[in-house]
Amino acid sequence: MNITVWNEYRHEKENPVVADIYPNGIHHTIAGFLEEAGHMVRTATLDEEQHGLTEEVLANTDVLVWWGHKAHDEVDEDIAEAVKHRVLEGMGLVVLHSAHFSKVFRKLMGTTCDLKWREADDRERMWVVDPAHPITEGIGQYLEIDKEEMYGEHFDIPTPEELIFISWFEGGEVFRSGATFKRGRGKIFYFRPGHETYPTYYNKEVQQVIQNGAKWAQNIGTPTHIYGNADPIENISEK
Amino acid sequence: MNITVWNEYRHEKENPVVADIYPNGIHHTIAGFLEEAGHMVRTATLDEEQHGLTEEVLANTDVLVWWGHKAHDEVDEDIAEAVKHRVLEGMGLVVLHSAHFSKVFRKLMGTTCDLKWREADDRERMWVVDPAHPITEGIGQYLEIDKEEMYGEHFDIPTPEELIFISWFEGGEVFRSGATFKRGRGKIFYFRPGHETYPTYYNKEVQQVIQNGAKWAQNIGTPTHIYGNADPIENISEK
Amino acid sequence: MNITVWNEYRHEKENPVVADIYPNGIHHTIAGFLEEAGHMVRTATLDEEQHGLTEEVLANTDVLVWWGHKAHDEVDEDIAEAVKHRVLEGMGLVVLHSAHFSKVFRKLMGTTCDLKWREADDRERMWVVDPAHPITEGIGQYLEIDKEEMYGEHFDIPTPEELIFISWFEGGEVFRSGATFKRGRGKIFYFRPGHETYPTYYNKEVQQVIQNGAKWAQNIGTPTHIYGNADPIENISEK
Amino acid sequence: MNITVWNEYRHEKENPVVADIYPNGIHHTIAGFLEEAGHMVRTATLDEEQHGLTEEVLANTDVLVWWGHKAHDEVDEDIAEAVKHRVLEGMGLVVLHSAHFSKVFRKLMGTTCDLKWREADDRERMWVVDPAHPITEGIGQYLEIDKEEMYGEHFDIPTPEELIFISWFEGGEVFRSGATFKRGRGKIFYFRPGHETYPTYYNKEVQQVIQNGAKWAQNIGTPTHIYGNADPIENISEK
Repeated sequence: MNITVWNEYRHEKENPVVADIYPNGIHHTIAGFLEEAGHMVRTATLDEEQHGLTEEVLANTDVLVWWGHKAHDEVDEDIAEAVKHRVLEGMGLVVLHSAHFSKVFRKLMGTTCDLKWREADDRERMWVVDPAHPITEGIGQYLEIDKEEMYGEHFDIPTPEELIFISWFEGGEVFRSGATFKRGRGKIFYFRPGHETYPTYYNKEVQQVIQNGAKWAQNIGTPTHIYGNADPIENISEK
Repeated sequence: MNITVWNEYRHEKENPVVADIYPNGIHHTIAGFLEEAGHMVRTATLDEEQHGLTEEVLANTDVLVWWGHKAHDEVDEDIAEAVKHRVLEGMGLVVLHSAHFSKVFRKLMGTTCDLKWREADDRERMWVVDPAHPITEGIGQYLEIDKEEMYGEHFDIPTPEELIFISWFEGGEVFRSGATFKRGRGKIFYFRPGHETYPTYYNKEVQQVIQNGAKWAQNIGTPTHIYGNADPIENISEK
Repeated sequence: MNITVWNEYRHEKENPVVADIYPNGIHHTIAGFLEEAGHMVRTATLDEEQHGLTEEVLANTDVLVWWGHKAHDEVDEDIAEAVKHRVLEGMGLVVLHSAHFSKVFRKLMGTTCDLKWREADDRERMWVVDPAHPITEGIGQYLEIDKEEMYGEHFDIPTPEELIFISWFEGGEVFRSGATFKRGRGKIFYFRPGHETYPTYYNKEVQQVIQNGAKWAQNIGTPTHIYGNADPIENISEK
Repeated sequence: MNITVWNEYRHEKENPVVADIYPNGIHHTIAGFLEEAGHMVRTATLDEEQHGLTEEVLANTDVLVWWGHKAHDEVDEDIAEAVKHRVLEGMGLVVLHSAHFSKVFRKLMGTTCDLKWREADDRERMWVVDPAHPITEGIGQYLEIDKEEMYGEHFDIPTPEELIFISWFEGGEVFRSGATFKRGRGKIFYFRPGHETYPTYYNKEVQQVIQNGAKWAQNIGTPTHIYGNADPIENISEK
């Protein structure tokens, strides 16, 4: 499978705390464990030409992983539309953490995608609520992350088609942390964890879920529909 | 309940066949039976100032009914955004027939909303597949319309949260003809029938479904969430 | 609307702590606030003849509220089947707390309905995750209950058709606390709170949710389908 | 993957028309194409000891395919319960055609699973309505079967978690023909076609869908939850 990991790649260059955790950028950490799992992985970042997302790159991407936070507005409108278009066409999309506010995700959801948040070293415990789902392969009853940013309900998304994880936060909130959506021929997995100031993407269980999500999101040979004016297949009576 | 019926109102002025069926416009026919059902009903049309959808009108609308077809592109981007915003805030939305391609519906769905179509006097039979749903109140096992435009699958919408009607068409197609969605605090009902060259909105069962849909879509006093940075409710331990 | 409140009514007779909180039984407390809301309310209990659920009572019940805990097995199989049958026919069902293990709910769900539990005075905070749903009318962002029994995931139910509340528990768990299902013409609302040793059913917000749930669950005049061998409506060609 | 194909295997022994189409029984035809696809396939039939479904067979079955029609009542209650239990534990289940009325499916659904039917050589056209779903791999916009038994709505099942195919029938009906459900750790796929008097299971596209369904239904290593009394993970304050 061809995976492209897209990262805004700004915090790592500007904040030494983040640079210390992800010296080559969050994208390289994520690309690393996906490569180890046997996938062909490219990376792309905001400051590259066309954000690294040329037509050719998109056409050759089975699943796109997206991390962004502080520069959603700098993503070019046309490129956001092109990514959305490719998802509708069948490219899988794994949306991580603060990418809930990315242009691509918001366009696909149709809602504000707003939520509550707090940076206060909350403990997070993500409970599996759909133990038949392949995205939970290899996971236990829950994942625990000792310190993370809190995201709390209400999360203003459309009702997820599948709700896989619900997070408990130490400060008193809950959150729908793992959720799937289909749009056109595309499959979308939103996965909450991964604030840039914590080493969350080194967590083996978090890595496992992202791998599972990418595998689930890949579309293999489902039908392409024809739209528009259509001749009748059966006879239509005179009336 | 305060209902606003919005109509593009162009076919009626340009096509004598349509003018003959709906001499005062589709909006007045729809407004008529909704008023008879006891609601306060306004109308609004494309060629009015701000398309008749001022901030005040939207603020005082509980449920907006939308019919449009050939001039979706002429709907002002800001007004489409304002309508979308009001839906997320809690205004109900009933989307009729060719309004599947309206800016408002597409923005809320996040997909192309494309489909197959044919104007060939197909017989349509809409089967009730969710007989527990209040939108089916007063309806039998199915609604039958002798001649209608065909809409066929694939209908490129997100998976409906509730699927209420499935249409059978004489020419060999099926269609998800009655479907509900929630976005933010807003409830949305898409209902398929109503091509302008047929007298569909005089059909008593079609009228009943539109009334039921408006009633279902009204939001009464559900919570308004607060978003953004949030203090903890419980103590967070030192780590 | 005609509501029947069914209670096992054993704890109240055997445990002085419970008798002290609900001297006339949980059913009378629930019936009380539903009557105040303007409904016609009957009660029925396990130790009455036919558990108080004769064919006539069921036929005249629009919505049945069910509370049971320690004597699910004493509910007669035929009566459980009759209740299930009435739900499929269109009677609403509000399932409270430990009734997750009732025969009626398990038959309708098809799963074990098992969960984690603990009686340890956990604080519970039920977050609204579907602020468009009429069951949340009059509620804020969350309901808080100072002490309750904990119910934790995984809750072994089918995926709810609508997920309305998610609980946070002090001891570290989450739970899908408000969930709806449709079965046949019947609408079902499961609502978690209400352990017998706490005064939960005196909580005004809990009462509001139960009223909202009963109102939502009522079926008014939706279609009754005909099943079995069916003549064709359209001509079938010779082949 | 280990697949067990279960067949009632009565029509083939009693009706020469059926025997002619499926001389070794429907189960061998289905087992044949699943073996060709590389799976380990067993068969089991009603008249074998324990219907061929011993504890050992069930324990070693990843996905069970079920065909039954006229003898659902002869399936032993305990074996039906054992199969249901294995599904909840994680065994996939593919339910074919008239098995909508099987004990196992009805227990898992909680509804009557009733429907309309007619044996009149209707043409059936199954439209893909979820083109992102892996069960549609290798299929076009629709599958067409020249002659089949008609099944019509209302199909009294819980709302499917995923609706993949909708059938159009020549006589005027529609049907939700491909639908998925999750129960516990188990995944269930209902697929409509396959009346015993037609050679439907020789249709390559029907075979493809059944293969896809079996592949989709297999559970690989998702978590097993612990139920019952649970110690707190976090401290609970004195109140």
